Amino acid sequence: MSTDEKANEIIVETQYIQIPSIKLECGELLSSIQIAFETFGKLNSDKSNVILICHALTGDAHVTGKHSPEDKKPGWWHQFVGEGKAIDTNKYFVICSNVLGGCSGSTGPASINPLTGEQYALSFPFITIKDMVRAQKELINDLGIEKILCCIGGSMGGMQSLEWAITFPQQCLSYMILASTPFQSPQNIALNEVGRRAIMNDPNWHNGDYVAHSTQPSDGLSIARMIAHITYLSDQTMHQKFGRRIKGKDKLTFELQNEFEVESYLNYQGRSFIQRFDANSYLYITRAVDYFDYSEGKLAQILASNGIDSKTKFLIASFNSDWRCPPYQSREIVKALQNNNLPVTYREIESSSGHDSFLLETQILSPMISNFLENLSN
Amino acid sequence: MSTDEKANEIIVETQYIQIPSIKLECGELLSSIQIAFETFGKLNSDKSNVILICHALTGDAHVTGKHSPEDKKPGWWHQFVGEGKAIDTNKYFVICSNVLGGCSGSTGPASINPLTGEQYALSFPFITIKDMVRAQKELINDLGIEKILCCIGGSMGGMQSLEWAITFPQQCLSYMILASTPFQSPQNIALNEVGRRAIMNDPNWHNGDYVAHSTQPSDGLSIARMIAHITYLSDQTMHQKFGRRIKGKDKLTFELQNEFEVESYLNYQGRSFIQRFDANSYLYITRAVDYFDYSEGKLAQILASNGIDSKTKFLIASFNSDWRCPPYQSREIVKALQNNNLPVTYREIESSSGHDSFLLETQILSPMISNFLENLSN
Repeated sequence: MSTDEKANEIIVETQYIQIPSIKLECGELLSSIQIAFETFGKLNSDKSNVILICHALTGDAHVTGKHSPEDKKPGWWHQFVGEGKAIDTNKYFVICSNVLGGCSGSTGPASINPLTGEQYALSFPFITIKDMVRAQKELINDLGIEKILCCIGGSMGGMQSLEWAITFPQQCLSYMILASTPFQSPQNIALNEVGRRAIMNDPNWHNGDYVAHSTQPSDGLSIARMIAHITYLSDQTMHQKFGRRIKGKDKLTFELQNEFEVESYLNYQGRSFIQRFDANSYLYITRAVDYFDYSEGKLAQILASNGIDSKTKFLIASFNSDWRCPPYQSREIVKALQNNNLPVTYREIESSSGHDSFLLETQILSPMISNFLENLSN
Repeated sequence: MSTDEKANEIIVETQYIQIPSIKLECGELLSSIQIAFETFGKLNSDKSNVILICHALTGDAHVTGKHSPEDKKPGWWHQFVGEGKAIDTNKYFVICSNVLGGCSGSTGPASINPLTGEQYALSFPFITIKDMVRAQKELINDLGIEKILCCIGGSMGGMQSLEWAITFPQQCLSYMILASTPFQSPQNIALNEVGRRAIMNDPNWHNGDYVAHSTQPSDGLSIARMIAHITYLSDQTMHQKFGRRIKGKDKLTFELQNEFEVESYLNYQGRSFIQRFDANSYLYITRAVDYFDYSEGKLAQILASNGIDSKTKFLIASFNSDWRCPPYQSREIVKALQNNNLPVTYREIESSSGHDSFLLETQILSPMISNFLENLSN
């Protein structure tokens, strides 16, 4: 049986913890918080084999395996997590939780506010990457875990991983930060803004109260996803995957829609996204990402004084075709770490897969990840 | 008086020609066509000083000068066109026309169909870059011009310039093609598709009949413009222009909108665009661009057999930070020209201004343009 088939055989159940409250960075107190999480592998006797995986913008706790044998697809990083894989669940106890503000089991704008009995919608307080990490910290405490062997994340997951090093510098022995950045760039704020605007302009958004109106801003959310999806790919990938191929016919028929394969693909991405994601959650999480800011030397400055162990190891990887988080942004993290004499390995990887490389480049990333993890015990 | 002040002093009037009909590439016959155009400088006695400028996606015939002294802004390429400028109106007779399908005086979806007395809207036939050039050819004929000294365009204007070399290979002595491409890439089709989808999802679009409903799809058109506008700039420009600066306050106040300067700027761009552009026209013109396709050796093949004079000169320029039409696309034009032994000068210009470089890099482009034009007579 191939390792991929094995991963598909893992049956996992989503678990939940309740957190009484968290004082958020925006100043508000959020009470009665639920965090959804999944675990894979077994915690060893000295609790030294814990790997925390942080998901990206629209991810969830379901990092690998299936919830039932009938599930069509395994979790979002199944190529990397499972028995005999780069993050080997025979060795490691892997935890992944849905972020605070999310819509896959953790408390977010789609949750019921216990004080009112109604959905939070826009009454949900603003959250930040630090708040997401604070919620993860509560989970780690709840599981009785003192040290995390490695905290791993790509894209927004990488922001969370970096935030762990900043906020809880003594908790993790190492970090792996892929296709990420120490700050949200103005171009990315701009791209998020257009997506948010598409959602908020949708007449079915109803100022966030779409559930009360028995509808949802599907068109707007779909547009937001389509914009974002383009930025996760690369020009080269689009040439390879679609080129200028016409959809299902042998010549142009002059239509405003669906002439080209790339258009059908993009529309399909938009349509499937609205089945699985809450529009308000999208607004809040993109905003959390926009607020992420350790630019202009802030990162180096914090790491100089937050008590991080000088032996804490970092693996930073960027991808040359990633224009959402281009390599220069990863290099800023590397520079800040080096300025603080922290051990850092940096890999700038040639790949045509754009920002999504951290999800797709299994062959390049697998040995890099497993070597890094193995060397931690040395 | 500076040359810029002089350009601002030019007062120009938009002129119009009527074309009985054009058989369009989609197969339909479009009748009673109007083309808006402006001219600058004087046609010399042997009619040898004609420069045709083709505008980009949302441009118009008003390339320089003002329509009245009260106008706040001069035309869209005023930095380059005027007395003593790179395209010196003391020497050259400059023509610029609004494209077929446009909404600034030329016949497009917003025009009245003389057969029905109602706006064309979606009954307007599909147009292509070749159709735009055919309309320009009618204008040139109407003005009694036999040879064009140089046909110049940036972005979609560059597509038109290239199309002139393909469709009317004996008409122009030279071509200048800036920040352009021999084919619309799948990434650009995808970006256009999202913009179109935003317009067509807007409930005020009314299947194109918004004028009949006394409204317009402002939200959708504004989203389309915002997406496109991001792609005209570069990551670096956005860092320089806006960084992560907060708008009009000294710290974050946690809002879904207008926290950052880049957001306000982008929203302003969206709002101003809807004042000057017709949504259906945007659909049709972006579609024309999507259909542009001289990829995979087609260009070289056509130029080998279309009777273009072997002395026809080309200047091709691309910009390293342009991710809408990256340099490799311009190099494909260059390769096709070189394969046909046509004299071509290629400049790959370092600029942080992205796709908009052809509008902004006055200091770099002005000498390049004026030298190229001067050398034509040698």
